[in-house]
Amino acid sequence: MTTGSHFKPDADTIIQAAKRINPYINRTPVLTSHAIDRLFDAKIFMKCENFQKVGAFKARGATNAVLSLEKNLLTHGVATHSSGNHAQALAWAASLVNAKAYIVMPSNSSKIKIAAVKDYGGLITFCEPNLASRETTLARIVQQTGATEIHPYNHENIIAGQATAALELLEDCNDLDFVMVPVGGGGLLSGTCLAVHYFHPVTKVIAAEPEQANDAFLSFVNQKFIPSMNPNTMADGLRTSLGSLTFPIILKHVHKILTVREESIVKAMRFLWERMKIIVEPSSAVPFAAIMEGKIEITGKKIGIIISGGNVDLDALPWMKNA
Amino acid sequence: MTTGSHFKPDADTIIQAAKRINPYINRTPVLTSHAIDRLFDAKIFMKCENFQKVGAFKARGATNAVLSLEKNLLTHGVATHSSGNHAQALAWAASLVNAKAYIVMPSNSSKIKIAAVKDYGGLITFCEPNLASRETTLARIVQQTGATEIHPYNHENIIAGQATAALELLEDCNDLDFVMVPVGGGGLLSGTCLAVHYFHPVTKVIAAEPEQANDAFLSFVNQKFIPSMNPNTMADGLRTSLGSLTFPIILKHVHKILTVREESIVKAMRFLWERMKIIVEPSSAVPFAAIMEGKIEITGKKIGIIISGGNVDLDALPWMKNA
Repeated sequence: MTTGSHFKPDADTIIQAAKRINPYINRTPVLTSHAIDRLFDAKIFMKCENFQKVGAFKARGATNAVLSLEKNLLTHGVATHSSGNHAQALAWAASLVNAKAYIVMPSNSSKIKIAAVKDYGGLITFCEPNLASRETTLARIVQQTGATEIHPYNHENIIAGQATAALELLEDCNDLDFVMVPVGGGGLLSGTCLAVHYFHPVTKVIAAEPEQANDAFLSFVNQKFIPSMNPNTMADGLRTSLGSLTFPIILKHVHKILTVREESIVKAMRFLWERMKIIVEPSSAVPFAAIMEGKIEITGKKIGIIISGGNVDLDALPWMKNA
Repeated sequence: MTTGSHFKPDADTIIQAAKRINPYINRTPVLTSHAIDRLFDAKIFMKCENFQKVGAFKARGATNAVLSLEKNLLTHGVATHSSGNHAQALAWAASLVNAKAYIVMPSNSSKIKIAAVKDYGGLITFCEPNLASRETTLARIVQQTGATEIHPYNHENIIAGQATAALELLEDCNDLDFVMVPVGGGGLLSGTCLAVHYFHPVTKVIAAEPEQANDAFLSFVNQKFIPSMNPNTMADGLRTSLGSLTFPIILKHVHKILTVREESIVKAMRFLWERMKIIVEPSSAVPFAAIMEGKIEITGKKIGIIISGGNVDLDALPWMKNA
């Protein structure tokens, strides 16, 4: 890793990303609740990326990456392997410019997610449900088609795109003490770090992660990359390991990484559904779970939370029996 | 009924109601979805009263009614019988001015709703689960305490308060062709009618109702009051009969009342959860169910829908087995 990597993408790259994607994505609302503020004696601002295109912040990075590609590359399409929101986001972003999106999905992906990728026009190739099969299948497709691989997080244009969520949050909310985001591969977290660093550096960035997928926490406190090993969390967006681009940014700019128990994720998710009347997916509830666990002192503070997405299977909610 | 009753409350009463309640209630957002608009080839604007205080538009009317009371009356408190959102709304509104709220609730009310009323400081008296017991219990409490009864919908200040939701919607969305609202007792519908009549009369007001609680539809087409008989719908906010104040307004100003099947309500509710990522209660999904059933031609039109509330029991969703 080069010394300069901590500051890539730079401020102008993020501003250009925002200009590039703004015609296509939603300016998502920032919601507040007096009842919640009173309960925690704080001011909490929720940036609702569950209302984003494809139901998650991933639309930002994918759109930025696709629209940044040169035309001669775009004609061959884009490709990725993903069973989650990035698959949908890339298929959707490619459809904006009539480009092909080759999506490698594990054969055990949920029917809902497969249907969503197809709806957005994604061309799906199924593979065995393991990383080796995902990578070899993707490599084969890239070779056959000449498509450009768009990694879900370890990609400068993805990071710059995800940074625009925090950019908007900072525009809408003055003087936040903290911005809290969940961390999986670190695309949203590193983008948030950079947006805060360039545009409101007194704000502290706090990440939150499931205890049962605490690789980012371990990497952060040990100051060396530790991969995700057998993550066992319902927060399916947070099972991945950090990347070579995202980790150095996180190491340099994150104030703290908090971990939460699985039962706290369910509790926080349900609390947000009941009190805010918004649908948030388990991964999105993780920062609020850290607040509910009392892992961070927030009395009198102003806290922005990026609610990362709202894609859940309504037939398998974590509080349902037999879910 | 007097001839003039069709125009009560008047325009200024609604504007005064808005001024009176604005410091206390939420200015709820109007959400849109390009995907939904494309699907129906129309422009749909959802006024999200599920994000309102107490999770429903009822906070508007209750606040207006409580704040309109003279101080010497307020000292004796307010009272109502309700097992639903009005109970919570009145308890909450009374708490704003430290007034007592006596709430008569049927003994079989859901634990969640009882807890919510208690949370807002409501003083609950339980009664038998039938209208006669509700009314006699309420009459006794009013006599004992000197509290002022606040009817959930057949009350001028309630109607004026509910009218402010449509007033805001008209401010935010120009030139709506239709405004659609669900109809139960008609407080929201009659308020919406008056706001549209005074402030944007070319817009047509369309009501929607469950087939299995179609008393408003029958009253409307027969032009005479027909009470709700054994309503059997999951839309628990829409089981009540129209009132002597609300019915004449509805008769004069409503363009159409559409009815929908129970399975359409579930389908519409789930569709809004999945596509909009917002929690809406069954009653709130009824207008959108009418659109999904094709009960109204909306191609190329601009339609406002008032999403009336978001109070649901997350352990008993209509698509759950054994719910």
